[in-house]
Amino acid sequence: MSSSLSPTEIFERMMAKDHFSRWMGVELIELGTGYCTLKMSIRPEMLNGFGILHGGVSFSFADSAFAFASNSHGRLSVSQTSQITHVKAAQTGDVLIAEAKELQLGNKMATYDVKVYREENTELIALFRGSVYRTSRSFNEE
Amino acid sequence: MSSSLSPTEIFERMMAKDHFSRWMGVELIELGTGYCTLKMSIRPEMLNGFGILHGGVSFSFADSAFAFASNSHGRLSVSQTSQITHVKAAQTGDVLIAEAKELQLGNKMATYDVKVYREENTELIALFRGSVYRTSRSFNEE
Amino acid sequence: MSSSLSPTEIFERMMAKDHFSRWMGVELIELGTGYCTLKMSIRPEMLNGFGILHGGVSFSFADSAFAFASNSHGRLSVSQTSQITHVKAAQTGDVLIAEAKELQLGNKMATYDVKVYREENTELIALFRGSVYRTSRSFNEE
Amino acid sequence: MSSSLSPTEIFERMMAKDHFSRWMGVELIELGTGYCTLKMSIRPEMLNGFGILHGGVSFSFADSAFAFASNSHGRLSVSQTSQITHVKAAQTGDVLIAEAKELQLGNKMATYDVKVYREENTELIALFRGSVYRTSRSFNEE
Repeated sequence: MSSSLSPTEIFERMMAKDHFSRWMGVELIELGTGYCTLKMSIRPEMLNGFGILHGGVSFSFADSAFAFASNSHGRLSVSQTSQITHVKAAQTGDVLIAEAKELQLGNKMATYDVKVYREENTELIALFRGSVYRTSRSFNEE
Repeated sequence: MSSSLSPTEIFERMMAKDHFSRWMGVELIELGTGYCTLKMSIRPEMLNGFGILHGGVSFSFADSAFAFASNSHGRLSVSQTSQITHVKAAQTGDVLIAEAKELQLGNKMATYDVKVYREENTELIALFRGSVYRTSRSFNEE
Repeated sequence: MSSSLSPTEIFERMMAKDHFSRWMGVELIELGTGYCTLKMSIRPEMLNGFGILHGGVSFSFADSAFAFASNSHGRLSVSQTSQITHVKAAQTGDVLIAEAKELQLGNKMATYDVKVYREENTELIALFRGSVYRTSRSFNEE
Repeated sequence: MSSSLSPTEIFERMMAKDHFSRWMGVELIELGTGYCTLKMSIRPEMLNGFGILHGGVSFSFADSAFAFASNSHGRLSVSQTSQITHVKAAQTGDVLIAEAKELQLGNKMATYDVKVYREENTELIALFRGSVYRTSRSFNEE
């Protein structure tokens, strides 16, 4: 059920296929069993109708960090429910950090928090919380 | 406090600046005071590390329908909290519909449900619920 | 895996042990596979520090309807995540209805919406959405 | 807009009317501007149809800590949306702690996390996140 691949090998396998995270331009800052920190710069095509970062892009950025953190154990884990609270608007040119941490790891379910903040002044942009269903498949079996 | 612009005029003003909704290729199907239905086709750059639609893109698609529905009253409304439950995976080539409906409209807050489903067979992909804070600014004042 | 007990038999088995639903005084209005409607009257001991219905009691009332609806299939189902949006305050003497409906039923997970409203004028009090993990145990095996 | 009452005076005013928190038997452990820790013992009338703590009671316990933390600033704050993730079951006789912390404080909205855990072994029972709408009324004006 578990995998002999390291968190980094799992990240690389996922990232190779993860076209949308590559579109966002996410860059890996830190990674380990149960956690992941990513970095991203806001580009004009990420903006919404108010000229600020589209809430779906801040969610997606957090969601990617959440996916890498939750799959780092070697068991294929699929997002079940997640929630985001928007705190501040972000603008073109802002550099954002998404920091995903494991809150609890059960046999079937696990829960993660992701903080999205501005790198420059650590100002909070959004708070994300998500739960995964942990399948019985490992990354080895792929 | 309220606006003399129609839901369509508000949608057009927002959409003109909404680069990310344009990147997603959202197309307007139906729009009125408090509701909005959008359509979108899944492209390869929207996929995640499992080769299926990135959860952040299904969220973003729902979030755009939610933004158009909640701003249709003419008062600038900003997303506060939202939640998504993923039901089925979606693949490249799938055509999706996002249907946003108003559940309650208060003076300061309002709540919306968005169903994301496959157009072909109406199979449910995701369930989204979001709340906005309704500012006192109208679209006219911009 | 599935149960030969009817939704009513399952409800009765659960209700016999459900001391807190009995404390709330919930009364069954309608029940079937995947849905449940309950009724409750607000008593003074249910109020919070502002002299209105405690948000935890409106949540609990919805949560009970959710539990009866999700267990009606005969498979032991445990609440995983749920969310509530408070719409209006409720007062002592108000009679409330909680109406739980199934939004999706998967093999491992299922999702439900519960509307809590005032019986008299159908005014919305709260919106609840919850997901259960469906275990492989049936009510028969107990 | 702000209040000259201390967090303790506000807590006492709220608690005097908060019949449901008194029914739960919550005891104040720690309190300050933006945080609150409560303690509670599980009694048989708090159980659900599976003979374990009703999810609505763990929610209510967290919700009370959230209300005391968010009102500690002296501005009347009403719960808007909250979410709970259930981690472990709790039984009669268990002593639980609810620890509420402020994640962000805006002018109109603020967000709090509450951890509910077993006092004895600090085992996590539930994770709660809630947002309040901060009215312009202070506790002094009451």
